[in-house]
Amino acid sequence: MYGTIRVELSSERKAKPSVDTGLAFGKYFTDHMFMMNYSEGSGWHDPRIVPYAPITLDPSAMVFHYGQAIFEGLKAYRSPDKSSVYLFRPDKNAARLNQSCERLSMPSIDEAFFVEALQSLVRIDADWIPESEGTSLYIRPFIISTEAGLGVRPSSEYLFAVIMSPVGSYYEEGIHPVAIHVETHYTRAAVGGMGYAKAAGNYAGSLKAQMLAKEYNCSQVLWLDAAEKKYLEEVGSMNVFFKLGGEIVTPKLNGSILDGVTRNSVMQLLASWGMPVTERRISMDEIAAAFANGTLEEAFGTGTAAVISPIGSLHWNDQTMSINVGQTGPLTERLYNTLTGIQNGKIEDPFGWNVRC
Amino acid sequence: MYGTIRVELSSERKAKPSVDTGLAFGKYFTDHMFMMNYSEGSGWHDPRIVPYAPITLDPSAMVFHYGQAIFEGLKAYRSPDKSSVYLFRPDKNAARLNQSCERLSMPSIDEAFFVEALQSLVRIDADWIPESEGTSLYIRPFIISTEAGLGVRPSSEYLFAVIMSPVGSYYEEGIHPVAIHVETHYTRAAVGGMGYAKAAGNYAGSLKAQMLAKEYNCSQVLWLDAAEKKYLEEVGSMNVFFKLGGEIVTPKLNGSILDGVTRNSVMQLLASWGMPVTERRISMDEIAAAFANGTLEEAFGTGTAAVISPIGSLHWNDQTMSINVGQTGPLTERLYNTLTGIQNGKIEDPFGWNVRC
Ligand SMILES: Cc1ncc(COP(=O)(O)O)c(C=O)c1O
Ligand SMILES: Cc1ncc(COP(=O)(O)O)c(C=O)c1O
Repeated sequence: MYGTIRVELSSERKAKPSVDTGLAFGKYFTDHMFMMNYSEGSGWHDPRIVPYAPITLDPSAMVFHYGQAIFEGLKAYRSPDKSSVYLFRPDKNAARLNQSCERLSMPSIDEAFFVEALQSLVRIDADWIPESEGTSLYIRPFIISTEAGLGVRPSSEYLFAVIMSPVGSYYEEGIHPVAIHVETHYTRAAVGGMGYAKAAGNYAGSLKAQMLAKEYNCSQVLWLDAAEKKYLEEVGSMNVFFKLGGEIVTPKLNGSILDGVTRNSVMQLLASWGMPVTERRISMDEIAAAFANGTLEEAFGTGTAAVISPIGSLHWNDQTMSINVGQTGPLTERLYNTLTGIQNGKIEDPFGWNVRC
Repeated sequence: MYGTIRVELSSERKAKPSVDTGLAFGKYFTDHMFMMNYSEGSGWHDPRIVPYAPITLDPSAMVFHYGQAIFEGLKAYRSPDKSSVYLFRPDKNAARLNQSCERLSMPSIDEAFFVEALQSLVRIDADWIPESEGTSLYIRPFIISTEAGLGVRPSSEYLFAVIMSPVGSYYEEGIHPVAIHVETHYTRAAVGGMGYAKAAGNYAGSLKAQMLAKEYNCSQVLWLDAAEKKYLEEVGSMNVFFKLGGEIVTPKLNGSILDGVTRNSVMQLLASWGMPVTERRISMDEIAAAFANGTLEEAFGTGTAAVISPIGSLHWNDQTMSINVGQTGPLTERLYNTLTGIQNGKIEDPFGWNVRC
């Protein structure tokens, strides 16, 4: 598929950042990257692992003007005995990458090849996987349009690249509950738009609300539906779950939110514990009513970067709703421990989620 | 403001494309480009005109991942006696650029400086302005985020660049009426989103519907509102106007459509002719009813690339509505002749729209 992966090793190796720096998210990059080009007619070609280096593009490269840019995010973990390295559910990222491609009129990538490319790259830079608690190697595959020209149409050329970054915990606060601002003015994505794609443009449009959230001392935004600003969608870079009087709920996939790999894993875990999750519409009115009558038991976000992030409070219009007295709830904690345990190889992986490199 | 513009002339000059090639939109670029960098703390700095050359960015440059990328588009024309060169309403583009910046959490640019930068660049590459009927020099200012790093937040570094391209008519068909597909499934932008910004991501999400339109033999998409898919928004790269039983209407600026410079110019022209335009909500039901009762007199799109583009038919669900028997209507033609006449300097410019370089 696409030819053998050519490998050109870097002649110099960078100094690895100390874990004591906190390994800020996506700040340090490994020695190598994966690249592959697409052009109309020849398809994807020249897969290669090369030294991490800048990308050079014409100023009229379409990605700068019409934004065909999508990405994925997943993590590699080292097993406790340090003998092997695992990727967490890379097949899910491969499938989602192709969904994003389809929505943005970009060429898809063979899913088995995608996983193989990641495995090859991780093997080469395996010494970059940090070892202490809570750390991992974050992997960022992405595709950008590279054709030079200003006609508004799908590019005829693309670059697929994978870069990797050793990371600590996503939130500086660690696993402590976060305060979330419910955004009632700005919209992230509408039904019929590209909200279900991991498209660069979705994030560009969300930064303004994220900055506003900070003014309310909230770390992220909880988006509402574009049409009525009533129904919950997702958090900045996480899907969202609530425990309401015993029922565990999460917004259903309606085309405007991301089909999170962590979301899917949490649903499988909970089902295996006999606690099925209801995927449905959830209104802020329902959340506020549950808060008022004491049935808003727990809330948490799910995403690759933070894994499970307890939500300590929701700021909505003039109201601040504290959840589980601002503490991590028991279910949230159990999910966090189980999921990170499976990822780190400390707990058995009954689902076959970990894929060896 | 930001220091003097440093000029480094190109030692080689490229061959200019012949007008006979048709000068496909945005395919050929002039010898020079304008650039200026921003970094937190120092603000915008090092304005320069340099040889047109590739841009080099780290693979983790934020524009590739979180899509902070906005652009503008305007044209330079040569006066009939060839003695001078004019920009068409560059102050409007400067103001809109800053609106886009604001929405995407990007740093704004002094508007007078923006115009000065364009003027300086056009003066240097003035011999690239093509001379035959319908041609012009298309100017593409854009800003991209350049900071290396994967944290989801506004970049702390940006590049502002201006590139220029000699262009013929935007539509291969020339000023002939175009067929437009009314999109009832996909959404371009929702209220609260970034539709009013000229953001790269808005275009990435629109390509899929544009490709579908082609399958209906339509050249562009007419978008409907995201919430109800009932009300007209705008065409792919144009605003839209209708003449309905004598009333001239255009969708009002609601935050999800672009505040087009051509739209604004058409409204001013029509007002000066005693034919004020009503900016309001327009539903497809209203258009279909007007079609049925014979009052759908004319329709046209407005945009920098095509200037005025008569709409010959609308394809909506299973219906195709032919407008003015598929011919360019008299008002549409008068607007086209007047506006291009003012731009080319063949007609007096009572509004002071042309700005000398
Ligand atoms: C918008 C958005 N929603 C949800 C998620 C969670 O998805 P996943 O669990 O696959 O990381 C992410 C990213 O990680 C995201 O960016
Ligand atoms: C989405 C969109 N709407 C409308 C327009 C028309 O704007 P203007 O008349 O300023 O060119 C454009 C671009 O030119 C556009 O891209």
